[in-house]
Amino acid sequence: MTHASFPSWPDSAAELIAVATHRRPADMVIKGGKWVNVHSREVLDGYDIAIVAGRIACVVPDASAQIGPETQVIEAGGRYMIPGLCDGHMHIESGMLTPAEFARAVIPHGTTSMFTDPHEIANVLGLEGVRMMHDEALMQPVNIFTQMPSCAPSAPGMETTGFEITAEDVAEAMTWPGIIGLGEMMNFPGVSNADPKMLAEIAATQRAGKIVGGHYASPDLGPAFAGYVAGGPADDHEGTCEADAVARVRQGMRAMLRLGSAWYDVESQITAITEKGLDPRSFILCTDDCHSGTLVNEGHMNRVVRHAIACGCDPLIALQMATINTATHFGLEREIGSLTPGRRADVILTSDLATLPIEVVIARGKVVAQNGTCLVDCPHYDWPVQARQTVHMGKTLTAGDFVIDAPRGANAVTANVIGVVENQAPTKALKFELPVTEGRVQATGEVAQIALVERHRATGHVTNAFVSGFGYEGPMAMASTVAHDSHHMIVVGTDADNMALAANRLGEVGGGIVIYRDGQELALVELPIAGLMSDSPAAEVAAKADAMMQAMRTCGCTLNNAYMQHSLLALVVIPELRISDLGLVDVRTFEFIPVIEPLA
Amino acid sequence: MTHASFPSWPDSAAELIAVATHRRPADMVIKGGKWVNVHSREVLDGYDIAIVAGRIACVVPDASAQIGPETQVIEAGGRYMIPGLCDGHMHIESGMLTPAEFARAVIPHGTTSMFTDPHEIANVLGLEGVRMMHDEALMQPVNIFTQMPSCAPSAPGMETTGFEITAEDVAEAMTWPGIIGLGEMMNFPGVSNADPKMLAEIAATQRAGKIVGGHYASPDLGPAFAGYVAGGPADDHEGTCEADAVARVRQGMRAMLRLGSAWYDVESQITAITEKGLDPRSFILCTDDCHSGTLVNEGHMNRVVRHAIACGCDPLIALQMATINTATHFGLEREIGSLTPGRRADVILTSDLATLPIEVVIARGKVVAQNGTCLVDCPHYDWPVQARQTVHMGKTLTAGDFVIDAPRGANAVTANVIGVVENQAPTKALKFELPVTEGRVQATGEVAQIALVERHRATGHVTNAFVSGFGYEGPMAMASTVAHDSHHMIVVGTDADNMALAANRLGEVGGGIVIYRDGQELALVELPIAGLMSDSPAAEVAAKADAMMQAMRTCGCTLNNAYMQHSLLALVVIPELRISDLGLVDVRTFEFIPVIEPLA
Repeated sequence: MTHASFPSWPDSAAELIAVATHRRPADMVIKGGKWVNVHSREVLDGYDIAIVAGRIACVVPDASAQIGPETQVIEAGGRYMIPGLCDGHMHIESGMLTPAEFARAVIPHGTTSMFTDPHEIANVLGLEGVRMMHDEALMQPVNIFTQMPSCAPSAPGMETTGFEITAEDVAEAMTWPGIIGLGEMMNFPGVSNADPKMLAEIAATQRAGKIVGGHYASPDLGPAFAGYVAGGPADDHEGTCEADAVARVRQGMRAMLRLGSAWYDVESQITAITEKGLDPRSFILCTDDCHSGTLVNEGHMNRVVRHAIACGCDPLIALQMATINTATHFGLEREIGSLTPGRRADVILTSDLATLPIEVVIARGKVVAQNGTCLVDCPHYDWPVQARQTVHMGKTLTAGDFVIDAPRGANAVTANVIGVVENQAPTKALKFELPVTEGRVQATGEVAQIALVERHRATGHVTNAFVSGFGYEGPMAMASTVAHDSHHMIVVGTDADNMALAANRLGEVGGGIVIYRDGQELALVELPIAGLMSDSPAAEVAAKADAMMQAMRTCGCTLNNAYMQHSLLALVVIPELRISDLGLVDVRTFEFIPVIEPLA
Repeated sequence: MTHASFPSWPDSAAELIAVATHRRPADMVIKGGKWVNVHSREVLDGYDIAIVAGRIACVVPDASAQIGPETQVIEAGGRYMIPGLCDGHMHIESGMLTPAEFARAVIPHGTTSMFTDPHEIANVLGLEGVRMMHDEALMQPVNIFTQMPSCAPSAPGMETTGFEITAEDVAEAMTWPGIIGLGEMMNFPGVSNADPKMLAEIAATQRAGKIVGGHYASPDLGPAFAGYVAGGPADDHEGTCEADAVARVRQGMRAMLRLGSAWYDVESQITAITEKGLDPRSFILCTDDCHSGTLVNEGHMNRVVRHAIACGCDPLIALQMATINTATHFGLEREIGSLTPGRRADVILTSDLATLPIEVVIARGKVVAQNGTCLVDCPHYDWPVQARQTVHMGKTLTAGDFVIDAPRGANAVTANVIGVVENQAPTKALKFELPVTEGRVQATGEVAQIALVERHRATGHVTNAFVSGFGYEGPMAMASTVAHDSHHMIVVGTDADNMALAANRLGEVGGGIVIYRDGQELALVELPIAGLMSDSPAAEVAAKADAMMQAMRTCGCTLNNAYMQHSLLALVVIPELRISDLGLVDVRTFEFIPVIEPLA
């Protein structure tokens, strides 16, 4: 394992001073740009940036004196020089890519700092998995700071994860070099109820002088919210309307406004700045979750900044929200987030501040991308076998594992059905009358079967239930080991044989997503690392994911973002109905309910 | 020694949550105020603040539910609730008061957090003296954070201090609980020249994750400034004009705008915000140096905020500059600086945001002052004998110690004379023709004698020279053991007998300031602790200091701030001419020059 050892400011201070005072040449000089100054909120024309040891030595009207025979000179040619963009909160696993491949995908978009919560792998591989992500993160040519996941399982008692994160794990992680704080504290009822485990995790983080990430996914801004704030989370990205953003900022949290592949929370909240006129310093932009397709086709933080500007935000304020605001929040403002002396030389050249074309990306003083092409190596961690073989089903499944028996003598039953709603994370708790054939309940019409296949402990256990809304027709099944947050395997299908085929196929390839119809494999996305990520390039993964989504349509599903809906069906913290390895969960009451209502 | 042990946020989180969620009553509720929100930069009418364990549990429209039988209820009555004020950089010794008595003086003015650099005592008592200041600071009912002094001596090789501060001292201090960072790095040429000792002190601070205070006292904003910034100081309070403030903020430092007893640097710099429109987040207000008289008669940070507003600054921005901006700079924004959950309950009630009357002051959830009266105990450290007996002259001085011999045979000489300039810290390097009588050079006309009496090592050494500009008439002398930065003893007089009397008197009382005329003591300010501070109340010290300044006028001195001029005459880092125990220093060249020019 090779960790990039990037020298600290004090390590390099003598060199920085020597360049700033003309006593030695710079490694690189960017000449003749418009200095976008996120401290003063100004654009200053006609500046040069001198760089040495990967850091900015000085920003001055003329750095000609710092140019020696070995100095690399980059002509800005009057373009804007902006700080490398920071993503304030995100999950790398959402891209189905390893940190290295994620970095390779986003570097050309100008993202040079990411605050990542490897929450998904924590559920599969525990603290060890977090460490692997952390270690690969530190190997990259850009800055990937790790937030220690706080909530695995997300809903204790409601599901069984591969591993659980403890307060002791959190305390240990706080000593690792790349840990910047605690990942989103999703157990907001726990915090408001002063749950000792949640408070212990927060305390371990605060005592280490680090930042507690928040996740308050409720519209209730009354005492429950007050209790959550009093518990210590310092930011929140779950706001969806102006009032949410305003409340968070007034209460001394930072409001993270999110534009992910499927999150659209910037436009609805940025009016707190653009219309209500709040001081923008407490607002931060982030993505939370980006699919590989978004990274390949649309961008990353550049997409978010552009969008904020399109929503009416002043470009300089939008840039502050993706640079210095983020850096300040995490206590890193003397390390990243602005083009000023001592900071890591993370610089973007762009010819337009509103449309934000990312023309040149410099990270730590090296040109890492130009015109959309990554020019730098993003080293791969040597993922061990236990990270590559995480689908432990214990047996080969058969159609019989997906049978739902009816109560003796029933001709029809009332089933509790998970109702998928297009473009919404919450599901509906529906009831359907379903026919019974040969003692078995039949999924018919718009109702399909859903199964949660245990894959962490090889118990061979399958939990069966019903789901509606996908629109599947004909004998088919789709299986995924991306199954938030426990990441067992979710199988949705109209036919038990196809369900068994799909599940077994994922067991065979070590995880991913697969679709079968009529006994034939229509699409496969291999995600061999923890069943969550691929170490192939983003474009390859995106192409396979595209084919997978096309296959879903082929099977009759016309929902927008249907794959995300599939992968969230076991997320037992979002109402109303979910499936877990322990049964069907009514998330409104945090109680298990029967799949088949007892006969009256 | 009793250290106030104030529980941390995680220590109190369960209580804070319980109050916020109505599960237990608050210790205190402030009812019905206008919430001055320094995060969002808004005034929000009709809010209550519930406090428990010295921290804010919640800020809500109605905290009636948090009021129990034991809850102290403070009626805000529609007044503004603002965060306790923060002084971003200051020296407690400048008030000639111990930390306890300084705190007692400023609490009624609403100052609840101070960032103090005990640089003066460091010169007299070294690291041990810093520790004593630090320990007394931690005993106070308000927040006094200590910046570890960086430059003792201020000009190595140009003076001999009682102790020297080393990089090892700095590294050790960084482990103390009350140390917030490094005190102002005054050796700016050293930083620009990459002096290893200065860089080692900065590195020790940065590696501890703490803030390096700056002091760049030069108008040169070229490469020397660039080199200083590249060296790592994170703030600077030495700016005097708009361009200074702008340059510092653009380069990623925080500009501290200073209004001390004798510093007037707010009005000249605040136009960077009010006219040039820079983002105000990087600006901080501070006092640097306040005399006890200012504290008694005019105020402290409330005076600075009022002044900033009077200079045209928006009151909310001015308050941000004395609250959240300071807290953010020092990495304390989740501890102080705003009225939001989890923070220390440091609250001021005021009925007007522009004139800022300080009506009620609450610190850590207790009412500590009301209508100008301090209501709280400010415990005294048990200062040991070595801190109280620091005037080591080695012998009783006589008139003969203050004789300046002329070169043999000279009837008149050309003397290099320190020229005091009213209201300016820099002196002028003047030349005077002085008569010789009986082989001794006579101070005549506007020229008086100045002597630096060694008082740290009992060498009995006296350095004699000349000074002009005070306007003294008749036989008199004034002596002070406040003698920046080495704090030997500065004696200025027109008569050798009176000079000896004054010097010996200070030896007798253990330091302070004394004025003699015609052999009679006109005024005495006893400063028994390190010869710098009194542990008497501010009002007493101010009254004695007033009497001392009256005595200066009685002796013919009509200069404004004449005492400060006196005490700065040995400050061998400010041009042009100064005296040290090693001789007469030309600070323009950092060279010693003769008192009497050699005969041609």
